[in-house]
Amino acid sequence: MSIATTMIIRLEIRKSVASFGDVASALAAAGGDIVAIDVIRAGKELTIRDITVNVQDAANGEILTVLSTLPGIKVINVSDRTFLAHIGGKIEITPKMPIKNREDLSLVYTPGVARVCMAIAEDPGKAYSLTMKRNTVAVVTDGTAVLGLGDIGPEAAMPVMEGKAMLFKQLADIDAFPLCLDTKDPEQIISIVKAVSSGFGGINLEDISSPRCFEIERRLAAELDIPVFHDDQHGTAVVALAGLLNALKVVGKELAECRIVVVGIGAAGVSICRLLLAAGAGKICAVDREGILSREQVYSNAEWQWLAGATNPEGITGGLTEALRGADVFIGVSGPGVLSVEQLRSMASDNIVFAMANPSPEIEPELAEPYVRVLATGRSDYPNQINNVLCFPGIFRGALDCRAKAVNLEMKLAAARAIASVVHHDELNEQYIIPSIFNEKVVEQVRLAVIKAAVSTGMARRIPPDISEEG
Amino acid sequence: MSIATTMIIRLEIRKSVASFGDVASALAAAGGDIVAIDVIRAGKELTIRDITVNVQDAANGEILTVLSTLPGIKVINVSDRTFLAHIGGKIEITPKMPIKNREDLSLVYTPGVARVCMAIAEDPGKAYSLTMKRNTVAVVTDGTAVLGLGDIGPEAAMPVMEGKAMLFKQLADIDAFPLCLDTKDPEQIISIVKAVSSGFGGINLEDISSPRCFEIERRLAAELDIPVFHDDQHGTAVVALAGLLNALKVVGKELAECRIVVVGIGAAGVSICRLLLAAGAGKICAVDREGILSREQVYSNAEWQWLAGATNPEGITGGLTEALRGADVFIGVSGPGVLSVEQLRSMASDNIVFAMANPSPEIEPELAEPYVRVLATGRSDYPNQINNVLCFPGIFRGALDCRAKAVNLEMKLAAARAIASVVHHDELNEQYIIPSIFNEKVVEQVRLAVIKAAVSTGMARRIPPDISEEG
Repeated sequence: MSIATTMIIRLEIRKSVASFGDVASALAAAGGDIVAIDVIRAGKELTIRDITVNVQDAANGEILTVLSTLPGIKVINVSDRTFLAHIGGKIEITPKMPIKNREDLSLVYTPGVARVCMAIAEDPGKAYSLTMKRNTVAVVTDGTAVLGLGDIGPEAAMPVMEGKAMLFKQLADIDAFPLCLDTKDPEQIISIVKAVSSGFGGINLEDISSPRCFEIERRLAAELDIPVFHDDQHGTAVVALAGLLNALKVVGKELAECRIVVVGIGAAGVSICRLLLAAGAGKICAVDREGILSREQVYSNAEWQWLAGATNPEGITGGLTEALRGADVFIGVSGPGVLSVEQLRSMASDNIVFAMANPSPEIEPELAEPYVRVLATGRSDYPNQINNVLCFPGIFRGALDCRAKAVNLEMKLAAARAIASVVHHDELNEQYIIPSIFNEKVVEQVRLAVIKAAVSTGMARRIPPDISEEG
Repeated sequence: MSIATTMIIRLEIRKSVASFGDVASALAAAGGDIVAIDVIRAGKELTIRDITVNVQDAANGEILTVLSTLPGIKVINVSDRTFLAHIGGKIEITPKMPIKNREDLSLVYTPGVARVCMAIAEDPGKAYSLTMKRNTVAVVTDGTAVLGLGDIGPEAAMPVMEGKAMLFKQLADIDAFPLCLDTKDPEQIISIVKAVSSGFGGINLEDISSPRCFEIERRLAAELDIPVFHDDQHGTAVVALAGLLNALKVVGKELAECRIVVVGIGAAGVSICRLLLAAGAGKICAVDREGILSREQVYSNAEWQWLAGATNPEGITGGLTEALRGADVFIGVSGPGVLSVEQLRSMASDNIVFAMANPSPEIEPELAEPYVRVLATGRSDYPNQINNVLCFPGIFRGALDCRAKAVNLEMKLAAARAIASVVHHDELNEQYIIPSIFNEKVVEQVRLAVIKAAVSTGMARRIPPDISEEG
């Protein structure tokens, strides 16, 4: 597939050897269309210019090959659209009002600000009304499990966290700030987040590898009085449950009766099982590389030990093949190629398959389709995308608006049901079990449901004016 | 002085006992003019309303007294203009571009962002071009020395840090984010700042009490490769030196020849002495409660020990009175009432007095004026305000633009000279030695001077396109 795109090429031209005309001719010959030239630095011997070029095929490397062979020309940098969108970062921090004169300054800075500081010093609860705390979330990562890229470190994780902050603001009007930590020590991560937490209304943990993420979240949730939410675990679980609730309606089965096979018992897998149990699932098989989790075994991982006791009531032994035989639902958060056509064919009729491994699903959707009633993936190029973006904006919007002390299981369940409810009964079908992330009702519905669940479970410090006290 | 102002009063009205008419009558009788009413919550028995009232005198407490005696009425909250300007905080975090559709999303978030992450993972230096790092400063405090309020804690410090972030953006287009730390342990503060630093192009330390601030700054500057700048120390020193350079021009004296008495050897005082020495001051007397710092003494504070050896070449003994006899310059960063008229009269002719204690100067300006040739304070209601706001935006703008590794003494000196240079020779007089913080040339001049100093001292990683390499 050829994609027309724009590139900006920064060149150093040694004037005694080459001219800009040489560059222009070479670019034209290689199929590039020059649309702009900016002089970055002009010296006696060297000039540096940014050449903006339209090319017909983004994957075309010919232009750069040609340039690199020209004498007197050095290619310093090449940016395409994606890189250009990242230059200088994707978010900014702006005043809510301008400081036009002394009077403005004395309101928002010294000397006026001193009275506001003292009001908070006397009653720290006022930080919610008089500072940015009430609308601000920290997006915290250590860069150890970024997308499917693994441990790439805090600097390289930043573009993801900035993108997340953009989504927080655009979808839910939340001010989110990325904190990429240069430490992998759970104790240090916990202590840093605790130390900065007074400035935030919530903590979104992100892309922290398993099993450290469990301990970090558990400790922070216990020791802080603001919501702590590891999106990779619970965001995925909430959206998967939302999709499953609707998929079950499509096929006419009950959650309590189905056998649900969850494959890949890492951060997301554990949270999916826990949320399914809370939602009333009766027969869950948790499967990892070592096979089906079972009560007969002892596991060093505390989460697995707990899960083994809470799942597999049928006592099935073996691996994925045994678990899937006659199963109603497959939920995969593992890796590509885990699921075979043969295994699919062994499932019960009207089966549901969520192949959510990223970027490549557990089975190619084209291969799976003939053998699956409802298919969902994590990808945007197939129907039914299970995407965390459906959850985190609304769940934090709700939690912030009621100044929640935590995000508990009831709030997550409420969020899942709210996401599911955005798809109307008469719209529901095999190809449409989950709303689009651009559907504006999602944040609104999730917010409302999360607030109600927080109020009814005693997690809310405040009832927003638009919510009636009766619930 | 009576100041007309607007207040918003949140009231709970018990309907069976009182009506809104009772409230309106009472407010009118007490001199309040109701301009707006908002219903916050309407229940069967209780309603909550926000009443916006114009009053002629902000200090008038009568309105609240009257309301609190009305049966069935409870005053929940009262906000004036300053508090209203703080509601919900003063800064926000916004995307630089909207995410309108799937294509936008795939550029700034998954899947497109993965290529950007990998480019940084391969070359962490690219974080400067591909993330917000290059324009972002952390404003870090532990809330131990906020304004003149002392140790009020991280929550209460936030309004000052948010105000600072507003000024960073408005004056220098820098994205500044407040990190208010809930720890006073220097080791923990150092380790937190180091752990978050990869996301920032600079660190502004703020309102951290002395002597901990010295160690924290010294260690961070040594261990990080980005600028670390404790504004209370160096911002004050830079602006004081700027003012002094111009004041000396007004009175026709030379820095090297003058006796300069610096009073209050805390965070700012130490930095002032150090910068004066670097600028070429020959005769400094550093005075604190224990008297004039002298070579004969031994001090437990390492900064004092160093200062005692580097100042007071005349070997003057005693206290402020002895130091000031025949002195040319008084620079105070101490407290109110420290300086007497008698001491002023003992100074040399054409004396210069910077009484910068906040909010009350070392001597009332009205008392001092008859005995001083050039007088400056930290206050905005007298001429010649020595205000840090003249320094930090421009110094960080310059440091960020050249990707400086640190802010060294040469860069601070350059900033001071640049601030001084904004006041033209023919404008210069006793009442105008320092530019206004709203003078747009300040940031521009400071930036330029700081970049040149950084380049010439090997602190710059990059020469911005508008600066010629010849300097």
